[in-house]
Formats: sequence, structure tokens, C-alpha cells
Amino acid sequence: MTYCVGLWLEEGLVMLADTRTNAGVDHISTYSKMYTATVPGERMLCLMAAGNLAITQAVWSRLQEGVVLEGETHTLTSVGSMFRAAQLVGAAIRSVYDHDGPMMEKQEVRFSVSLLLGGQIAGGPMKLYLVYSAGNFIEATPETPFLQIGEHKYGKPILDRAVSRATPLEDGVKLVLVSMDSTLRSNLTVGPPLDLLVYEVDSFRIRLQKRITEEDPYFRNLRDAWSAALRDAYRLVPAPGWF
Amino acid sequence: MTYCVGLWLEEGLVMLADTRTNAGVDHISTYSKMYTATVPGERMLCLMAAGNLAITQAVWSRLQEGVVLEGETHTLTSVGSMFRAAQLVGAAIRSVYDHDGPMMEKQEVRFSVSLLLGGQIAGGPMKLYLVYSAGNFIEATPETPFLQIGEHKYGKPILDRAVSRATPLEDGVKLVLVSMDSTLRSNLTVGPPLDLLVYEVDSFRIRLQKRITEEDPYFRNLRDAWSAALRDAYRLVPAPGWF
Repeated sequence: MTYCVGLWLEEGLVMLADTRTNAGVDHISTYSKMYTATVPGERMLCLMAAGNLAITQAVWSRLQEGVVLEGETHTLTSVGSMFRAAQLVGAAIRSVYDHDGPMMEKQEVRFSVSLLLGGQIAGGPMKLYLVYSAGNFIEATPETPFLQIGEHKYGKPILDRAVSRATPLEDGVKLVLVSMDSTLRSNLTVGPPLDLLVYEVDSFRIRLQKRITEEDPYFRNLRDAWSAALRDAYRLVPAPGWF
Repeated sequence: MTYCVGLWLEEGLVMLADTRTNAGVDHISTYSKMYTATVPGERMLCLMAAGNLAITQAVWSRLQEGVVLEGETHTLTSVGSMFRAAQLVGAAIRSVYDHDGPMMEKQEVRFSVSLLLGGQIAGGPMKLYLVYSAGNFIEATPETPFLQIGEHKYGKPILDRAVSRATPLEDGVKLVLVSMDSTLRSNLTVGPPLDLLVYEVDSFRIRLQKRITEEDPYFRNLRDAWSAALRDAYRLVPAPGWF
């Protein structure tokens, strides 16, 4: 399993991914699920992947080699807009499906992959997309300024309540870490270390990219502080007085 | 879908169920998923059900008619211990499976049901069980003093952090309502009104049984207060200072 979350804020993007992969509970490994393609001053794209690791790695390999989009071969560093970039990721998924899908179906392995693509290319707006297994996609909007893939349920309530377009980047970092913490506690197949990326709108370069280990003093402190804050929060809710 | 949660606390039991059932998103109804069997002064049992409504209603009907357990016909008001009561619920599920399972399988309808059974019978301890589709069951323990059925993920993080055996009953009521609130917000197939039951250990009678509507002033206030408390809580977490 996997948990990745992206925030599409007025100030920029916050992207966070766990690194645990598993094939059964007795075959657990650490793989980065975050990939970046940047041309400093011109573009910054960040991709996060959930699903079958053989598929997500194949998608990324094809994107690096170049994928044909409307007759021309492109990579994420050559494509002309974020919309085209999302189409390119979709085309890469379809190309992997054409190559591996039939054999996977024969062996009853589900063709399961989903990706979050966030970034900005000079001349266009900053975007955040969720690309599905079928290669089609949706994008974050002002009403829904965050997107999640993988094990999204445990970490959603805090995002539903606290994330808006106006959330500052630093608050966004806190919120995705809190959301991830809820997921780590409840699903063993989501695990540290974590990959964090922060992008400031119109900067066309990575503002912060950081691997956060379980021992990271800030993350440990945040987990404790959040647990304490939650316990205090419910105590502040008035009692029902029903009995 | 359904969300039911039971807390097994030193002071007693707190049981909460939603009432929404759906067969597709365009066929939504309200059904109580909470059933009680009490003999005041001698026993108090509360059952909450998730899964296929035809199965859960059939299980309850059979339990009322009487189910054969080791050669004797029993109901929840005649059975001698909570362990026997859990076995009786399991036997009722197996009896429904024997009657309807083969036809459901032919039509590829999953035989899906799970039940929470909480209560106490004079002479024995208070118990909380989760009974599976197969009719076998687990019980709450001091390390895991709450059990959930149905759509359990959204509402689990707060319970993981705040519920212990020592949680007072009134705090337990707040916590299950907060847990339900997170679920209601995120899954449309879990819906109000809610059925709440509170049982005080060794009392052998219902302390509180209450239907909570969306318009209930306390529940509305709790939802607002909890949202505000969560937003305040993440603001109290220190900033990372990474950029």
C-alpha cells in the first residue's frame, strides 16, 4: 500500500509520499515513490505513484525515455504545458498496459496504478492532477484543493476540515504530515521514511525537498504534539449532559 | 455502507450506529441497525449490524425466534453467558447462510455481514464482541478497548489516540460522536440519524438510548466545536522551520 497527498495552494504545492512497498506482509521494502523533472527557471514537475511497483517503475522509465504523444516523442522536460504533461503520464500508463496488461490479466494480477502530478511550466498556471490506471485524469480545483492516492481514508478528515486554497505553505507541510501520521498509525503497509517536496508558485524551482525519517526530531515532535492536541481537543468539546 | 462503533470501558459500554442503508447510490433508506435484548436487573445485550440488510434482518429475526445451540433452542434473553450469546449470534448467521447462501452465490451476491454484540448477563463480566460472516468472533481486550464494523477508517485515528479502558462514559459518548462525524463527512453512504446506547457496568439495564438527528443541537454543536478544535490543534503544532 501507499499514501501520497498533494496540496494545490495559492502559495504553491506541498507533496508528500511514504516509501513502503509490500508484496504480502512478509515482503516489505523501501522505494521512493516521488520523482521530479525540473528545468530550473523554466519548469518544476513532481510525480508521486501508488499501485503495483512494476507498473509505476515502468511508467517512470518510459517517461524518462520518451513517450509518443500525438505523433511526437516527449518527456516531462520537453512537453509544452501541464495539461500535456498529464496526457503524457496517461500515455505512458497506456503504453505499459499495452506491453504488460494482457500477461498480467492472464495471471489475474490487477493493473493498478494511480499518480499525482503537480507542477508548473513557464507560461502556464501551476496544476495538480490525479492520473488514473486508464490514463485519464482529474485536477485539483478551488473547492477541492487537495488530492490523495493509495490509503487515503485515515488521513482525510483533517484535510477536509483544515485545507483551503489560502492555507500557507508552512501550514500545508504541517497538515500533510499530520494526515500522514494518522495513516502510518493505522496501516502497517504505509511506512516511513517520507519524501516531502514544496514548490512556490511561479518560482520554477524546488523550494524544499526533504527525506523525513522516523527519527527526524521535528516529525517526532509533530506526532506527539498532534496526539496531545487531539486529546485536548475532544476534552474541549462540551459534554452532552444526557445522563 | 454502515458505520458502527462500540467502546468497552471500565465504566460501561458506549454503542453508536448510523442508520443509512443503500442499494446503489440512488436507493437510500433509513433502517435502525441497533437491536437490544434486555431483562432489567438480569441482562442487557445490544447488537449492531453491518452488511447486507436482508442478511442482518434475517439474523435478528432468527435470534428473536430462537436459534439452536448445542441441541437447545435459545434467544438472547435465555442464553446463559455473553460468550454463549456471541455463539448464538454466530449460529444465527450460519443458519441464514445455510438458507440463503447458495442462492446468493449463484447470483454472485456476497454473503457479507458483521455484528457488534455488547452487554452483560448477571453472574458474568461485561463483554464486547465482533462476530464475522463465518459466525466466529473476537472480543475487545484492555489493549483494544473498541471495535468497529463497516466504514471504519475515517473515524479510527481519534479512537486510536483517545480511547482507553479508563475513558469515562461521557467522554466515550463524545468520542464515538466525533468518530462518527469524521465518517459522515467523508462517506455519503453513512448517514444520520444515529442510534446511541450507553450501558453502565453491573447495572443490567440501559442507562441511555437515544436517537440523534442531524438537527440535534448537541450533535450540531459537537460537529462545529470539533472542526474548530481540529483547526486550532494543527495551528498549535510548531512550524517545521525548514524553509
